[in-house]
Amino acid sequence: MGSMRDSIKGRYETTQSRRIFWENFIDHPLVRQFLNQTKKMSTQQLIALVKKNGIQKKQGEVFLVGGGPGDPDLLTFRALHLMQRSDVCVYDKLVSKDVLNLVRRDAELIYVGKERDRHTLPQDKINQLLVKLAKKGMRVLRLKGGDPFIFGRGGEEIEMLMEHKIPFQVVPGISAANGVSSYAGIPLTHRDYAQSCTFVTGHMKDERLTLEWDSLAKPNQTIVIYMGLLALSQICVELVKHGAPKDLPIAVVEQGTTSQQRVITGALSNIVQKVKREKLKSPSLIIIGNVVKLRKKLNWFN
Amino acid sequence: MGSMRDSIKGRYETTQSRRIFWENFIDHPLVRQFLNQTKKMSTQQLIALVKKNGIQKKQGEVFLVGGGPGDPDLLTFRALHLMQRSDVCVYDKLVSKDVLNLVRRDAELIYVGKERDRHTLPQDKINQLLVKLAKKGMRVLRLKGGDPFIFGRGGEEIEMLMEHKIPFQVVPGISAANGVSSYAGIPLTHRDYAQSCTFVTGHMKDERLTLEWDSLAKPNQTIVIYMGLLALSQICVELVKHGAPKDLPIAVVEQGTTSQQRVITGALSNIVQKVKREKLKSPSLIIIGNVVKLRKKLNWFN
Repeated sequence: MGSMRDSIKGRYETTQSRRIFWENFIDHPLVRQFLNQTKKMSTQQLIALVKKNGIQKKQGEVFLVGGGPGDPDLLTFRALHLMQRSDVCVYDKLVSKDVLNLVRRDAELIYVGKERDRHTLPQDKINQLLVKLAKKGMRVLRLKGGDPFIFGRGGEEIEMLMEHKIPFQVVPGISAANGVSSYAGIPLTHRDYAQSCTFVTGHMKDERLTLEWDSLAKPNQTIVIYMGLLALSQICVELVKHGAPKDLPIAVVEQGTTSQQRVITGALSNIVQKVKREKLKSPSLIIIGNVVKLRKKLNWFN
Repeated sequence: MGSMRDSIKGRYETTQSRRIFWENFIDHPLVRQFLNQTKKMSTQQLIALVKKNGIQKKQGEVFLVGGGPGDPDLLTFRALHLMQRSDVCVYDKLVSKDVLNLVRRDAELIYVGKERDRHTLPQDKINQLLVKLAKKGMRVLRLKGGDPFIFGRGGEEIEMLMEHKIPFQVVPGISAANGVSSYAGIPLTHRDYAQSCTFVTGHMKDERLTLEWDSLAKPNQTIVIYMGLLALSQICVELVKHGAPKDLPIAVVEQGTTSQQRVITGALSNIVQKVKREKLKSPSLIIIGNVVKLRKKLNWFN
């Protein structure tokens, strides 16, 4: 690699383009085999490989990565690997600071907002931005809180990438429901209390929340509501109206999995007052069902 | 630490107990501050700390850790950290080999089976085993596939630990639903197709599966069924009987997230034949809903 350095410098003008070249070179299957000593190659063969790679047009790509619920220890290895290989990072409000700090230091950070649905940048502009950056030949990290395929609109973003034939990969993250329930000591399923678990979004349209209240009010299940704090009062009223018991346990968790985690538990009949008294803020996660009772026994984190 | 070595050797007889002592010592908040140079301490003070720690009775603990869906790159940092700190590992059928290979090399491995519900060791025996190992002073890794709080019966296991006052922590994992959907190119929620997502288990009792078919047959949602391959035929029949369209898209994924991943897609009316023809095996994950259509566009992994 030392002997090739000068010719590569001539071929690629910017530091960034050279870095990308060398990273791709090192990642090339043949070079890997050579380095692992499972394949022998002469310097001539290596140089031929460089020339071939050098002729290839630089193709950008997008990594749609789930940043998990907040605690950076809950990132996956795959997520960190791609965070370290990106040239630019397009991120949301819901990505925690501690996670953002792990993005490659010299990557450009682009904030696109998205607090509930008041996008700083509308969704179609975000989609276009990803395409534009990738077409410049950049490796674009699209970093989202939680899991990109659970209320993350990740599907919409990669649909547009696919239309433009831009390569991408998706890295699942620990969704808020999974992370928050673990750290709050509330199993989402439990043989005695819940045979199923439903995730819904509590985002309102024209100040109303339209959900399948009949299904949600049935017993023996756990309901997890994302972004539902503003609709909490309506949620409790509708569930009771559709047959759920007034004393059905409910928990609201603010900043789950972090050291600032706050968990308020109560019943459908009194949680609204309790949450008001404690002044919980968005984003908070709501968990409804008899599994919430288990927190008394299983609360291990604090 | 060098100057203390001999006295520690006298106090702790086995290599394992000495390792545990030193690891706990290094992790002690005061020692950390000392090593970070944010706190000054004399050798006398350090030795006093050692003596105090030495007098404490060794307390075992349990780490309930989600091993994710299969790909070891989807482990979290927290999971690997605890896998490396364990003296013994109690694991399931659903933990992938590649993940198991990352457990500390000298930790004892105890297999407790659990293929669907034919436990090699019944659940109450598993619970008792965890208690017994922890009471010996061991750090016990309870390693599960996916997420321990989603159909993992993790709640039951830690309930018993709590009764015996054994310290534990829970590490969420990427649940099969999240991992498999990402790698299969099927977003679980999507503004145009699904406003909610429900996880249920397809485990049968007396060869019948009892679920809330009315709720599950409603439109605009995604249903994910864990361990449902044996019940696939009944699932399709019941959903159609309760009003779901015969052409509702469905996917069955075998060994999701691994290089052996196989995805079969079809409709409620024909998936049973297709799965039979391809001879899919358990454990497989079933995804039902219009989001499955998106795979045609979004299939990126292979």
